[in-house]
This record gives sequence, structure tokens and C-alpha cells, in this order.
Amino acid sequence: MLKKEDIAGWFQNLQDNICAALQQEDGKGTFREDAWERPGGGGGRSRVIENGSIIEKGGVNFSAVHGTLPKQISTALELDDPGFYATGVSIVIHPYNPMVPIIHMNVRYFETSSPGRNGESTWWFGGGIDLTPHYVVPADATFFHRELKKVCDLHHPEYYERFKKWADDYFYITHRQETRGIGGIFFDRLGAAEGSKEDLFEFVKNVGSAFAPIYCHFMKKNGHLSFDEHQKEWQMIRRSRYVEFNLVWDKGTKFGLQTNGRIESILMSMPPQAHWHYDHQPAANTAEAETLSFLKKGINWLEV
Amino acid sequence: MLKKEDIAGWFQNLQDNICAALQQEDGKGTFREDAWERPGGGGGRSRVIENGSIIEKGGVNFSAVHGTLPKQISTALELDDPGFYATGVSIVIHPYNPMVPIIHMNVRYFETSSPGRNGESTWWFGGGIDLTPHYVVPADATFFHRELKKVCDLHHPEYYERFKKWADDYFYITHRQETRGIGGIFFDRLGAAEGSKEDLFEFVKNVGSAFAPIYCHFMKKNGHLSFDEHQKEWQMIRRSRYVEFNLVWDKGTKFGLQTNGRIESILMSMPPQAHWHYDHQPAANTAEAETLSFLKKGINWLEV
Repeated sequence: MLKKEDIAGWFQNLQDNICAALQQEDGKGTFREDAWERPGGGGGRSRVIENGSIIEKGGVNFSAVHGTLPKQISTALELDDPGFYATGVSIVIHPYNPMVPIIHMNVRYFETSSPGRNGESTWWFGGGIDLTPHYVVPADATFFHRELKKVCDLHHPEYYERFKKWADDYFYITHRQETRGIGGIFFDRLGAAEGSKEDLFEFVKNVGSAFAPIYCHFMKKNGHLSFDEHQKEWQMIRRSRYVEFNLVWDKGTKFGLQTNGRIESILMSMPPQAHWHYDHQPAANTAEAETLSFLKKGINWLEV
Repeated sequence: MLKKEDIAGWFQNLQDNICAALQQEDGKGTFREDAWERPGGGGGRSRVIENGSIIEKGGVNFSAVHGTLPKQISTALELDDPGFYATGVSIVIHPYNPMVPIIHMNVRYFETSSPGRNGESTWWFGGGIDLTPHYVVPADATFFHRELKKVCDLHHPEYYERFKKWADDYFYITHRQETRGIGGIFFDRLGAAEGSKEDLFEFVKNVGSAFAPIYCHFMKKNGHLSFDEHQKEWQMIRRSRYVEFNLVWDKGTKFGLQTNGRIESILMSMPPQAHWHYDHQPAANTAEAETLSFLKKGINWLEV
């Protein structure tokens, strides 16, 4: 029988492996670690890299926390008993070069001491990987989505389509009417109705293991491409949209800020810099305008 | 009898006067205007200045809108009938020089066609002025608060104390456990229970009229002080806190983003740039550490 400590242990190893892979690929930056304890129970290891050769700012966080959920959260989750255990790995990487995409990954496991209302599962997995290119390059997007589809297809023929749509809907900046990037996969509350805990953990492990090879591919391929001031400025504008999504719409960030989470770990997702211009519109027929045209839900990136 | 159109007309003039005063004091930047219409009724004039000699980015917005409130809003306001009229002026100014404070002002009038539940007023005024210095200078803070107290004292001996506390509580970045700046005054829902519409409008007019002289004082006094790279970087960090407050906690911004407001007018409050460093802490006994020590509720700035 799979124990929560086994899952947390695997996640902790995943953090080690991903940090090692990113550090090796970057060649210059190194992670610093802040271990922290949660007053209500548990803790985590935040690892942050700044001013690498390719990675300008990035965080790879592990946590395993437990205790009692605040009333508003247990109500929102429809749990009669607020006892919980949650463990996961969260990553956001902001590269220096605007030709390298921003990436985000999360894998998490949650369990509650609440009896399952309506027979619902008392444990579940969630997570996903999504990509936010400053400049959308269709071939790169296709590579990314095909890699995710390979992972999904190992487990269920419908996972990719289902979780790709979920990512389109989740990573949406409603007030801008644009997607954050080219999406990826997103899933939440995969519990007993979806499969055995062992099988779902296998899926989540494969998602987690896919991260480093995918991002190292982009670091290697695009990390040394040349760019100019204009492209750097565009990156700053795209980063401001990333800020807007995370602070206004992202449920994980909101949850963290409302539950007195460790602020610096939650906001490690913020870019090193961001720029806001009033009413910025890229000129017609530019790479920037083309990128905006790709920030829509429902694009089939497998065959662009 | 004071009509809503009279109030809107006065607000529109206030926008003109403030823009003229800021433009003259800046000496270089000029406002561009975007007039816009709201599909549901009414519209506004957004005025934005960028790359002035002192003002790096600022917005002075006027709007007068009417129609039907979304269900979630009328419920939150406890209105049985969602018909509404709202007019106001909103300002945020981000100066180039870190020695000049960021300033925010809002004056607004709201009325509803809903019968007053429990005899409550069917119209009200709201607004305030607050200051966010990148470096808190006690003498400047005292000047600012004394000017606001003069305005308040013209109308009610308790207004300053009451609205100063309200600003401390409102402009609070809960997740950072710090105030956005040194506060100022904030008030909302001043309706029939508080005084006649004419008297309250006089108060709001005095608040609006106080803005330009106060900010021009700081532009003149601090706009040409020298500063270095380190101080500029600190400004960028303070600006990121401004972003966090506005996107996570500010009710006006949230209201605008949830009700399909004009995005560029709402987000004109964003700074031109902002920086996030992981776990940034100023060194002990520096001007930056001193500023942080002042970002607390309940400081009596009248006599510091």
C-alpha cells in the first residue's frame, strides 16, 4: 500500500534531480536552499537560482505540510473535517534570453482525514506543466505538446486531450482575453474514481520526470540565440502578463496568500523584472503580433 | 438640489485642472487622452503621461458610467435593484526619481435606483489620497498628513482621525504584513446618515482640490534630488509591492477586472517597471531598513 510518506519522498528526490539537471545545463547558476517549517505542521525546502547563464531567476520548491485547513478552504473543498496532508513540487523558471520560454510545473498529492462526502475520494493528485514562450515558435510548441502527449498516452488515451483543454481553461488571463502561453497539461483532484493511487502516482511521476529533459532541450536549443533590445523589452511586457495571471487568477497563489503560506516561496514565481506600458500594441505583421495571435484556447499544437 | 450630472461635471473639471497642474510642474511630459464608451452605458476619459521629466508614468482618469450592476456586485453591496450611476476621478503617479513618492487619489460618487434597505442611503461618496514614498522621510510624511488634516478639519473634527485609520487598514499588504506606504485618508459609503449630499460633496471637492498642490510640492521639492543605482533598484522593489497590493488586495482593481472594466484604464496604476528578488532584505541600519520600519499601521505622522 502506497503511503503518503513514500509520495513525499519521491517528490523530494524529484526536486534534487531537477535542480541537478538545471544546474548542469545552466553551467553557471547554483541553487541556494532555504529549509522552512510550517508552524501548523510540516515544512519544505525552497531552492532558488538567480543570475545563471541561461536562467535569470527560478525556483524549485518542495513541501510536505499537514494540519488543519482554514475554514474557508475546507468549505471550498467540501470537506467535513479539515485535517489534511499535502505534498508537492512547484517550479517556475524565468530565463534571461527572450527566445527561451518561461516554464511552470507542479505535481502534488493531497489527502484529508474527512470522510468522503457522496463517496468522494479522500485523496487526490494534481499538477501539470505549461509553457509561456515570449515568442511563440510553432515548431517548439509542437515539440512541447508531443512530449506531454507521450507521457499522457502511457496512462490513458484520453488524458492528453482532456488535460490539454484543462490547461487552456486554467492558464487564461480573463481580463486580457488571452492565454498565459501555449498551455500544456493541467489536472486536479484525480482520485479513487479515476484509478488506483498506485496508477495515478505512476502518471504523476512520469509528468515530474518529463520536466527536466523538456526544459533542458529549450535551454540548449535557444539559450544562446542572439536577441536585441526590442526583443528584451517585449519579454518584459510578457513577464508583466505573467505577474497579472499569477496575482489575479492563479488559485495556488491565492490559496497561499490567504492561508499565510511562506510568502517568498509562493512568490518565487514572480519574474525578476516586468514592465507595464499604457495600452501597448505590437505593430501589425511583427513577431510580437504573431505571438499574440497564438495566445488563444483550443489550438491543436500537435500538428501546427 | 444637487444632481449627479453636476457632480460628474465638477469631477471632469477636476481632471482638467489636475492634468494642467501636473503638466506644468513636470515641464516636459504631456497627457494623451483616450475617450472611451462603456457598452452598458456611459464612458470616460483616460489621460496618461509617460516619460516626463519628473513623472515616469501616470494616469488621471475620469469616468461617469451607468446601467445595471452584475449580480455578484449588487449582492455584495446589498442592493435589491441593480440600477446604478457612478462617477469619479482616479489618479496614480509613478515618478522617475526614487526620492519623489508615488501618489494615489480617488474621489467618487455612486447612486443606485435600489430602495435603501433598512433605510440606508441610496447614494454615497468615497475616496481618499494616500502616499507611497520609496524612502520614508518623516518631515515629508508630516507635511502630507497635516495637509490632509486641514481638509478634513474644515468639515468635521473627527474626519481626519477616522479616515486616517481607514487608510491604514485599507492600504495594507496583508501577505507582507506591511502598509503600502504612509497612508493618508480613505473613506467609503459616506451617505445620508453622514450629512447632506451638498455638504459631503463640499468635502469631496476639497479632497480633490488638495491633490495638485500637495503633489506639486513633492515634485518641486524632491524631483531634482540626486540618486544612485542602489536607490533606483530599491524603487523597483517598492514598485513590486505596489503591484502586489493593487492586483491582490485593492477592491477597486478587483471590481474593475471582474466587471469587464476598461483594462488599460484600470491597470494604468501599474508602475512602468518592477523588480522581484527572492527574499530581499535590506541591510541593518540603512535608509531602506528604516523605510520598512515605518510601513506600519497606527503611526501618528502629524507629530513625528
